[in-house]
Amino acid sequence: VILRDPVHGLIPFDTEEDQIVVRLLGAAEVQRLRRIRQLGVTSLAFPGAEHSRFVHAIGTAHVMKRLIERLRRVQGDLPAWQRLTTEHAREALAAALLHDVGHGPLSHLFEDAIAGALPHEQWSTRIILDGDSQVSRMLAAEGAELAPRVAELVLGRHQLAYLAHAVSGTVDVDRCDYLLRDAHATGVPYGRYDLDWLLRSLRFAPLPDPDAGATLAVDGAKGVVSIEAFVLARLFMFQQVYFHKAARAAEWMIRAILSRAAALLSDGTSLADVPAAIAQAAAGRPVALGDYLELDDDVLWGAMHAWESAADPVLADLTRRLRARSLFKTLELYEEAESARSRALETARDIARQQGLDPNAYVGLDIASDTPFTDSDDPLAVVFPQGTTRKPGDVSFLLGRLRGETVTRARLIFAPELRDRIRSALGS
Amino acid sequence: VILRDPVHGLIPFDTEEDQIVVRLLGAAEVQRLRRIRQLGVTSLAFPGAEHSRFVHAIGTAHVMKRLIERLRRVQGDLPAWQRLTTEHAREALAAALLHDVGHGPLSHLFEDAIAGALPHEQWSTRIILDGDSQVSRMLAAEGAELAPRVAELVLGRHQLAYLAHAVSGTVDVDRCDYLLRDAHATGVPYGRYDLDWLLRSLRFAPLPDPDAGATLAVDGAKGVVSIEAFVLARLFMFQQVYFHKAARAAEWMIRAILSRAAALLSDGTSLADVPAAIAQAAAGRPVALGDYLELDDDVLWGAMHAWESAADPVLADLTRRLRARSLFKTLELYEEAESARSRALETARDIARQQGLDPNAYVGLDIASDTPFTDSDDPLAVVFPQGTTRKPGDVSFLLGRLRGETVTRARLIFAPELRDRIRSALGS
Amino acid sequence: VILRDPVHGLIPFDTEEDQIVVRLLGAAEVQRLRRIRQLGVTSLAFPGAEHSRFVHAIGTAHVMKRLIERLRRVQGDLPAWQRLTTEHAREALAAALLHDVGHGPLSHLFEDAIAGALPHEQWSTRIILDGDSQVSRMLAAEGAELAPRVAELVLGRHQLAYLAHAVSGTVDVDRCDYLLRDAHATGVPYGRYDLDWLLRSLRFAPLPDPDAGATLAVDGAKGVVSIEAFVLARLFMFQQVYFHKAARAAEWMIRAILSRAAALLSDGTSLADVPAAIAQAAAGRPVALGDYLELDDDVLWGAMHAWESAADPVLADLTRRLRARSLFKTLELYEEAESARSRALETARDIARQQGLDPNAYVGLDIASDTPFTDSDDPLAVVFPQGTTRKPGDVSFLLGRLRGETVTRARLIFAPELRDRIRSALGS
Amino acid sequence: VILRDPVHGLIPFDTEEDQIVVRLLGAAEVQRLRRIRQLGVTSLAFPGAEHSRFVHAIGTAHVMKRLIERLRRVQGDLPAWQRLTTEHAREALAAALLHDVGHGPLSHLFEDAIAGALPHEQWSTRIILDGDSQVSRMLAAEGAELAPRVAELVLGRHQLAYLAHAVSGTVDVDRCDYLLRDAHATGVPYGRYDLDWLLRSLRFAPLPDPDAGATLAVDGAKGVVSIEAFVLARLFMFQQVYFHKAARAAEWMIRAILSRAAALLSDGTSLADVPAAIAQAAAGRPVALGDYLELDDDVLWGAMHAWESAADPVLADLTRRLRARSLFKTLELYEEAESARSRALETARDIARQQGLDPNAYVGLDIASDTPFTDSDDPLAVVFPQGTTRKPGDVSFLLGRLRGETVTRARLIFAPELRDRIRSALGS
Repeated sequence: VILRDPVHGLIPFDTEEDQIVVRLLGAAEVQRLRRIRQLGVTSLAFPGAEHSRFVHAIGTAHVMKRLIERLRRVQGDLPAWQRLTTEHAREALAAALLHDVGHGPLSHLFEDAIAGALPHEQWSTRIILDGDSQVSRMLAAEGAELAPRVAELVLGRHQLAYLAHAVSGTVDVDRCDYLLRDAHATGVPYGRYDLDWLLRSLRFAPLPDPDAGATLAVDGAKGVVSIEAFVLARLFMFQQVYFHKAARAAEWMIRAILSRAAALLSDGTSLADVPAAIAQAAAGRPVALGDYLELDDDVLWGAMHAWESAADPVLADLTRRLRARSLFKTLELYEEAESARSRALETARDIARQQGLDPNAYVGLDIASDTPFTDSDDPLAVVFPQGTTRKPGDVSFLLGRLRGETVTRARLIFAPELRDRIRSALGS
Repeated sequence: VILRDPVHGLIPFDTEEDQIVVRLLGAAEVQRLRRIRQLGVTSLAFPGAEHSRFVHAIGTAHVMKRLIERLRRVQGDLPAWQRLTTEHAREALAAALLHDVGHGPLSHLFEDAIAGALPHEQWSTRIILDGDSQVSRMLAAEGAELAPRVAELVLGRHQLAYLAHAVSGTVDVDRCDYLLRDAHATGVPYGRYDLDWLLRSLRFAPLPDPDAGATLAVDGAKGVVSIEAFVLARLFMFQQVYFHKAARAAEWMIRAILSRAAALLSDGTSLADVPAAIAQAAAGRPVALGDYLELDDDVLWGAMHAWESAADPVLADLTRRLRARSLFKTLELYEEAESARSRALETARDIARQQGLDPNAYVGLDIASDTPFTDSDDPLAVVFPQGTTRKPGDVSFLLGRLRGETVTRARLIFAPELRDRIRSALGS
Repeated sequence: VILRDPVHGLIPFDTEEDQIVVRLLGAAEVQRLRRIRQLGVTSLAFPGAEHSRFVHAIGTAHVMKRLIERLRRVQGDLPAWQRLTTEHAREALAAALLHDVGHGPLSHLFEDAIAGALPHEQWSTRIILDGDSQVSRMLAAEGAELAPRVAELVLGRHQLAYLAHAVSGTVDVDRCDYLLRDAHATGVPYGRYDLDWLLRSLRFAPLPDPDAGATLAVDGAKGVVSIEAFVLARLFMFQQVYFHKAARAAEWMIRAILSRAAALLSDGTSLADVPAAIAQAAAGRPVALGDYLELDDDVLWGAMHAWESAADPVLADLTRRLRARSLFKTLELYEEAESARSRALETARDIARQQGLDPNAYVGLDIASDTPFTDSDDPLAVVFPQGTTRKPGDVSFLLGRLRGETVTRARLIFAPELRDRIRSALGS
Repeated sequence: VILRDPVHGLIPFDTEEDQIVVRLLGAAEVQRLRRIRQLGVTSLAFPGAEHSRFVHAIGTAHVMKRLIERLRRVQGDLPAWQRLTTEHAREALAAALLHDVGHGPLSHLFEDAIAGALPHEQWSTRIILDGDSQVSRMLAAEGAELAPRVAELVLGRHQLAYLAHAVSGTVDVDRCDYLLRDAHATGVPYGRYDLDWLLRSLRFAPLPDPDAGATLAVDGAKGVVSIEAFVLARLFMFQQVYFHKAARAAEWMIRAILSRAAALLSDGTSLADVPAAIAQAAAGRPVALGDYLELDDDVLWGAMHAWESAADPVLADLTRRLRARSLFKTLELYEEAESARSRALETARDIARQQGLDPNAYVGLDIASDTPFTDSDDPLAVVFPQGTTRKPGDVSFLLGRLRGETVTRARLIFAPELRDRIRSALGS
């Protein structure tokens, strides 16, 4: 199979080793990702951001394939037990493709909004291991050990530590693909780092002793720039896209809708078109895998559409606003102290109450934050010609200044009719 | 409003004149286009092709805005009654945005498959004119004449003939956007002609007499290349994407499914989850606008999902195959004579019968064709410095050789289990 | 060595096999190409077109390297004697790098203008074979057979016919690089065909008999598009860039200057700053290699600068005009008959005479022509899954219509002061 | 005139206002920039970096034209005396085109190497003001005040302070063009910030009082990202390209060659092919404008070529090495203390002496540094919807962390034969 991809150009899966990807692409659980948009409601702010988690999964597997090719070219000095065998490669390819196979619809909203809902990583694990899934059967057909190893790898654990970091680390294959893909789809140019150069910069750090696990490194000052560019691409995408105020407001509204629906359901109120998975989670019952897999963006939008006619006025109002895209407004809070933010929230909640609106549903404090770079979690090193090894933050002017720093955007989110009073109360 | 777009970069709608676009974007009928993919099932062959008709509609309006700017710069010699007024500009912008507002789900399948279904252009007209639609109310708010003029323009008719050709002609704004957008999304590089140069090449042909309608022209040999590149971009996209065998096979299957479902329904068989619009059309009853607007890709996929459990074995089988993406195979027919193609089809149908398969559902002849260039329908001319006017096909080496030629791809489409026997019977 | 290239991205020459390229890059004769612009005076029309033959030579070697990788992947079915050995690969890489090493300054002007000057291909051969050149010594250091084979290959001859065609054929590595590079540098987008796809489409045609030489082919309808796109990219670049009227006019002037200077020199007139190679050629004496190699763009511009003060009024006038970039004008002749063109030229020459200008120096007829595609010279075939082989022009709609057709631009070129009279005399 | 440009696409100079650019393009002093490469010897490291200062000058004028368009759209609230008149616009366009018209060959080497040589800004001023230049005559033809104002503006001074900052400031038009152009030519992707967004983000800060001069600002958090991206693009280009070790080594060698030649000349030694400007500067005599303008890359390379046969062994050796591209090596010094660097230099000089090499010619300490961002010099502000104004470094996470920081690369540069001993002496 050779696919055309808008981000990577030609994507060939044409070796025996990577046929595992081709087979898994046919699994219903993987195909389901076609129905979940990678960026959730962000397309309300960036109309081009309509790409699905399916095409991102393909891209991630492709980056893993390229990474494997690179690692094999530079693993000559590793002891045999640390090298990438064909088995490891297939585990890595499958893990790359399946890294988000358990993702719920509309970004992380489902697991955040409904108490008791499992995080999506656990759903991914279940899909990989549960004998009822097509994915697990395809993996089992390749050998009994594959599924458990892929499940571990998706959680960032593997006997080859460098492979685990490649699935979940500072410059993992997931990020490698989504930065380029989200930049391509949104039209925001800042996410375009140089993947070719990054891959070519990779090598293994010299082993401190023969029993140590191998760790990845980049090649001197030339290589560090590829990490700098990657880290900055990610930071820009966070600031421009992932933290975009309209998308955050829409996400907040959906979370409020789902919480409200779950509360109503657990109080015994009946609602139309409730997906089974939501009904079960709201009732505190375990969600069956099959029910979970029925959830996708369309199903959730369909339910919210139905709830526009709900008896509960808050649920009906929120869903109507969302569908008509009359989104809540935001007010950026520049104060960094938590107490100041809480005071601002309380002020806004008071205003909502005075206008007869439920503050839980119509006012919120949204804090988005990210630490663009730290070199304490990831052993990724910089290797110099004479074999010296340094931390990226010690070599790079930029990374040194960003190391451990956290970028935070705090915003009040509220119904538009509250805007003037909130603004004047907060003096902004 | 300034939007970010992956194809055009920044898209500003920030003048008084183009606020009509901003308002219409809020209409439910326009928002519905978010739920219809521009390329239908083509994403089965090109995984990146997930963009919707919504973002294409925005892009089309943007190209129209740029075209209007260009026309105003070059209309100095036109008589006043031929110039682009603000009213005309708003008609043109609205028509560009709404040109496909009545499009059904999954490409043209719906109108092709169900006898009695209206073509989508008529639905567009209804949405624009029917007082119940949000679109029509928004247009009415701008003046009573706007809606009827926009409706006419969507059908390619306007008192300014050049404006009509800009909506529906050799190099219309619809094509201008979709070529670039489909190329961007599929990763097929061939659709990227040079829009900047094309716009800058445009001017008005000298008027033969003061009462004649103005017609568009390009500027000499420099301008002709922009048409050449455009025509070839379109030809390449047809050959690579729009005629892609997997997409054509999937479309054929969906058409077979919809025909089968319609036939069953009109025979009185009941099916699960039949969208109201399909039920009405199958019963030969007029389809209500509200019901039509409920149709989108998800609804249709949902119905086909439900029909996997239909009692009719053919309907159940076809829908199951489609959902599992086990698509029908194709065999390219190189013979150009219609009789040879019919013979090939009959041979294949016989083989189906012998294997106990209904030939109507399991074998088909798919003929895709396009005439990349003709200069007989469109008055677009080439103007030379001394005022001489020639037809593009008389100036251009390439266009001269393509003029009036038709590219055709004829293929048998059939269930995979028939492949070997069909191939050997047809000796290929 | 890993180079950064604006066209191909990273260019690694990092295997043992391709070190021949790295070594040859250091040869003075190759470095001389830095001082010869790929597009000669075309930068007068396209200011970005300042790239040299040096960077094109690197790019050509890179494309050859990628081609070799591809051929090795698909040569499994060839008999051993037809496969690409390391020796063949090094011949091919060296030939790609050196294909134009003998090129004179300012495009093909030198060899065209001075009677008795050798064509540049022969200079390339001399540089490769002459024991005094650094290139020949580097080649000799790798084995006695290398230089003669590289020299043959540069002329398009090799025991592996497909390798010869890769150096000089329909889709040779020279064209592969220059189309992309010239498009990149001029900003003309039309030269961007899809190199990745082209390479991936290549395979060997099935051998008619075991003793036949292998020939290259592309893979079915998917592969044909890569040739179509390539052929069209080249056609567009010819029409937009290589045939650009200002560049053609400047080239014509330089040719007139060189002819005039050569005539003066052979008459015994002395001129300032005459490069030795020109002096020898004008005197009908053989040009020494060392003298030839001293020629580059700067030297020629320097000589023409000096001739602005020549006693000969025509030489002085032409060089002054050229340096002040007051270029001759052009008039496109649309008549295709040769007699009509000759009549137009005679008319223009008469007008020059009447205005007291030497018609040989101030009026010319410039005919630029190219045959974009023919499949009679090159055995490149299209191979279908069942092994059928067809000619590209029989498979492709586009190539079928272009096959054997010739695009011609005929123009009168003349001093600006003649323009009005020539135009009115020719009625255009 | 409409030019095609690889960086900006179409560059039209087609209004009455910008005809000043078209006319100045014809001036001999501007045309001379075709013979000076923008990046000097950097093409030794990046073979694609062959673009000249001429095409950069065009690009800079184009960015200025776009900036003027933007400023006119947002200057509505300025008092009349602060608005951009047509006169100001022509001054700005001319200054943009001419900002480096006095640049010497091969980057800044000439003015650095030869004591008493004027800095290139002063040469630019002379060219603009000296009645003998074609530039000055063309400016004078437009009115007596134009030339002096353009000369002032090139030095960063103008009655409209914001215009002065646009020629020489944090985000000036010079940088706007060269970052994109150098990135395009080298193939280093990091210099590509988003010019469209930057221009669209610009507006004027609210005037503190009616008599204050207007200052530029960007629009809120959305606008700040355009400055972040710009600053980082520049930082990346410095680290990757402008500080590249091979280019710095070559530049150091050329500086050593020019210093040596100047010293020899002022000692009365005669050298072949010394350009008049160098002879005069070395003799401490003022350099005539005409002689200065004869200097370009070719002339300097020609002189260095001639000096390969100089009697002085050091001059001959250095020029031979340079032409054969056997460049000096570098050793990165990570210690930041100046004393440590001086010690390293002394160690290396001692080693040179021990090997019988003149330490001034064969060993050097090269310190390259840049302050990527400071908001103390430039009044550029960030304006928020309610009119609040903040400094970019107070709004931006990134700029706040970079503000006032300096990136420095310190390297020893030395002849290759010294490498092993220097490395082992310095323990690296």
